[in-house]
Amino acid sequence: MSLTYFTPGPAQLYPTFEKHLQTFVSEQLGSISHRSQQYRDLHKFTVDQLRILLNVPDTHAILFLGSASEAWERILFSCVELESFHLVNGSFSKKFYDYSNALNKYAHKLEKPMGEGFIASEIEVPQYAELICVTHNETSSGVQMPVSEIHKLKQKHPTKFIAVDMVSSAPYPELDYSLIDTAFFSVQKAFGMPAGLGVWIVSERCLEKAEYIKTQYSIGAHNDLPTLWKNALNNETPATPNVMGIYLLGKIAEDFNRIGVKNIRKETEQKASMLYKFIDKATGFSAFVKDKASRSQTVIVTDTISLSADIIKAVKAKGMVVGSGYGQFKASQLRIANFPATSVEQTESLIYELGKL
Amino acid sequence: MSLTYFTPGPAQLYPTFEKHLQTFVSEQLGSISHRSQQYRDLHKFTVDQLRILLNVPDTHAILFLGSASEAWERILFSCVELESFHLVNGSFSKKFYDYSNALNKYAHKLEKPMGEGFIASEIEVPQYAELICVTHNETSSGVQMPVSEIHKLKQKHPTKFIAVDMVSSAPYPELDYSLIDTAFFSVQKAFGMPAGLGVWIVSERCLEKAEYIKTQYSIGAHNDLPTLWKNALNNETPATPNVMGIYLLGKIAEDFNRIGVKNIRKETEQKASMLYKFIDKATGFSAFVKDKASRSQTVIVTDTISLSADIIKAVKAKGMVVGSGYGQFKASQLRIANFPATSVEQTESLIYELGKL
Repeated sequence: MSLTYFTPGPAQLYPTFEKHLQTFVSEQLGSISHRSQQYRDLHKFTVDQLRILLNVPDTHAILFLGSASEAWERILFSCVELESFHLVNGSFSKKFYDYSNALNKYAHKLEKPMGEGFIASEIEVPQYAELICVTHNETSSGVQMPVSEIHKLKQKHPTKFIAVDMVSSAPYPELDYSLIDTAFFSVQKAFGMPAGLGVWIVSERCLEKAEYIKTQYSIGAHNDLPTLWKNALNNETPATPNVMGIYLLGKIAEDFNRIGVKNIRKETEQKASMLYKFIDKATGFSAFVKDKASRSQTVIVTDTISLSADIIKAVKAKGMVVGSGYGQFKASQLRIANFPATSVEQTESLIYELGKL
Repeated sequence: MSLTYFTPGPAQLYPTFEKHLQTFVSEQLGSISHRSQQYRDLHKFTVDQLRILLNVPDTHAILFLGSASEAWERILFSCVELESFHLVNGSFSKKFYDYSNALNKYAHKLEKPMGEGFIASEIEVPQYAELICVTHNETSSGVQMPVSEIHKLKQKHPTKFIAVDMVSSAPYPELDYSLIDTAFFSVQKAFGMPAGLGVWIVSERCLEKAEYIKTQYSIGAHNDLPTLWKNALNNETPATPNVMGIYLLGKIAEDFNRIGVKNIRKETEQKASMLYKFIDKATGFSAFVKDKASRSQTVIVTDTISLSADIIKAVKAKGMVVGSGYGQFKASQLRIANFPATSVEQTESLIYELGKL
C-alpha cells in the first residue's frame, strides 16, 4: 500500500518527483560533467526558477550545499567575526546557537520555552552582536515567527546582519530580500524531494563581510562563501555537487511557478486552517502553540491525550503517516506537515481519520 | 542514443543503478524519517556492505558526508592541531593542501609536476607534521601511488596520522586499515552513482585526537567528528542525510560483494592493461605517466597529437564519452575512466573506435 506522508521531513515527495526523476535517468544526467555547458545550463535553470519563486534579487546569490545544517556553519563563518545573537525556542534554533559556540564565536541568545514565539518589540539585540539568527519555522515545536516581525526586527537594527532559517517553510514565507541578508532551506521539506541538498540565499554584503573576516580568521575551507560565490557566477560549484538534487529542485520549482507561489501560499493557509480548526474542536487534541499568530502554517503541532504512537499506528493503517512529537514531547504530541505535496483532499482524509479515533 | 561514459566523475552509472532507484521510489524510502528504525537498518546495511567490500575493521567508523571535499576539511579539523604535510602532484592533492592553509594550519608540501608519482623512500616528513596527506589516485593526472608505498610511508612514521584520498579509485586500492588512520571517497566515480555523497572511513585514534584538539581550537560545527561518530554508533547522522545516496551505495556495494572485490580489482587491471597497451602502441597517443608503477588503474591519461576536443567529438558520435585533460592539459590529453560500470566489451569498443581515428 502506498502511504501519504504528513511527516515534517523527510516528507511526502511532490507528485511530479517521479516524472522528473525518470527524465533525469533517461537523459543520463547523472553522468554529465559538472564543468560542462550542459551542467551550467541545468544549474542556471534551477537558480532562475528559485529566483522567480522566492523573489530573490540579483544582490543575492543562490548557492547549493549538502544540507541546511551546513548553511548554519557557513553563515556563521561568513557573517560573524566575534559575536552572534540567536532567538532560541526549540531544537533547531538551539542547534544554530550551538554551532556558533562550536566555532568559538561568542553566541548570545534570547530563549523561550518550546511552543512560544517571538515578536520584534520584545527583542533586545546585544550591542556587539553582528548577526541576528532567526528561525522562521521551528520544526520541533510548530512555532512560526511572522515575516512582518522578522522584517521589523531588521528595520530596528539595519546595520546588523539577519539570517533566516526557513528550512521547513520555504517557499511559504514571503521574505523581502532588501531586508534579509541571508536565508536557507533544505529540499526534503516543502519541496517534496529526497534529502541531501541545502539551498543558501546570501547577499553581496555577506560576501564582503566574509572577505573581511578572512583577513583575520579562518572562514572555513570547504564551501567557503567567496569560493562558492565565484563558482556560482559561472553557474558552477567548487566541488562536484548533488546534480540530481539540483535538477529535481529546478523542475519542482518550475512546477511551483506554474501554479504560482501565491496560490501555493493560499492553499497552505487553507489546509493549515482546516487542521487547526479540527485540532481546536476535537476531543483528544489541542494545539500546542497557544498564540495564534505564532502558529506554524507548515508544521502543525498538537498535544494528544492518547499516546502519540497509538494514533500514529491507527492512522498508518489507513495509509497515512504523521510525525511524533520532538524530543521530550515525542509521546504526547503529533507533528503534521502541511507541505505542497499533500493536497486539500488528502488533508481532509487525514482529518476524517483522526476524527474517528 | 544512450551514451557510455568513460569520464572520470561524474561517470557511467553502474548497470544496477536504475533497478535500485526503482526500489527506492516504490518503497517510498525518500519519505522515511532519518530517526526511524527503518532508516537505521538501511544505514547499517550500507555500512556493513562497505566494511566487507573494503575490509574495514571495527576500529574504524564509516561515516557519510556531502562530498569527498568535505572530508578534506573534516580530516584537517580532526587530526591536525598545528601542522599537516601533503604529497602534491596534481589539482586535487593541491586542494587538500589549500584547505589546510584555509583553516590556518601550517601546511607543508612535497610537490612534483603533474604526471609524476611518489615512493616512500624519497619522502622526508617534516618533524612536527601531525598528518601525512596522500592521494592514492590523482584524478587530474592519472597518477597512482602504489598501496605498498603508502603502507611503507606509514610504517616509517608510525606515530603520525596518515590520510588517503581514494576518491577516484575505491574500491580498487586494498588498504590495510591497521596502518591507515583515515581514507575517503565519493560515489560518482567507481561506484557508478550520481554525485552528492562522500564516504569517510576514520579510526578511533582520529576521534581521540579530535577530542583533544577540541579542548584547544574549534574543530568545526557541522559534521564534526565526535558528533558524527556518536550518531554513527546508533546508525544515524547528525543532520538529515542523503538517504537516497546511502541506500543506493549499500545496494551497489552489495552487488560488488556478490561479484567479489578481488574479481573487480582483477577486471580493473585487465581493462587498464588493455587501455595502456593500446595507448603505448597507437599512433597519436602516448601515456602521460611514464613510470609504469605510477600509472593509475582507474583513470588512464593519454597525451594526444590531435586536439582532444576533436577526438572527444568523434568518439561521442560512436556513443562513447571520454574526458578531456585537466586544466593546462585540457586540449592535449584525454582522461579515460576505468570504473566497474564499464565492461571489458565496452572498453574494447572504445579502443576500437580510438584506433580508427
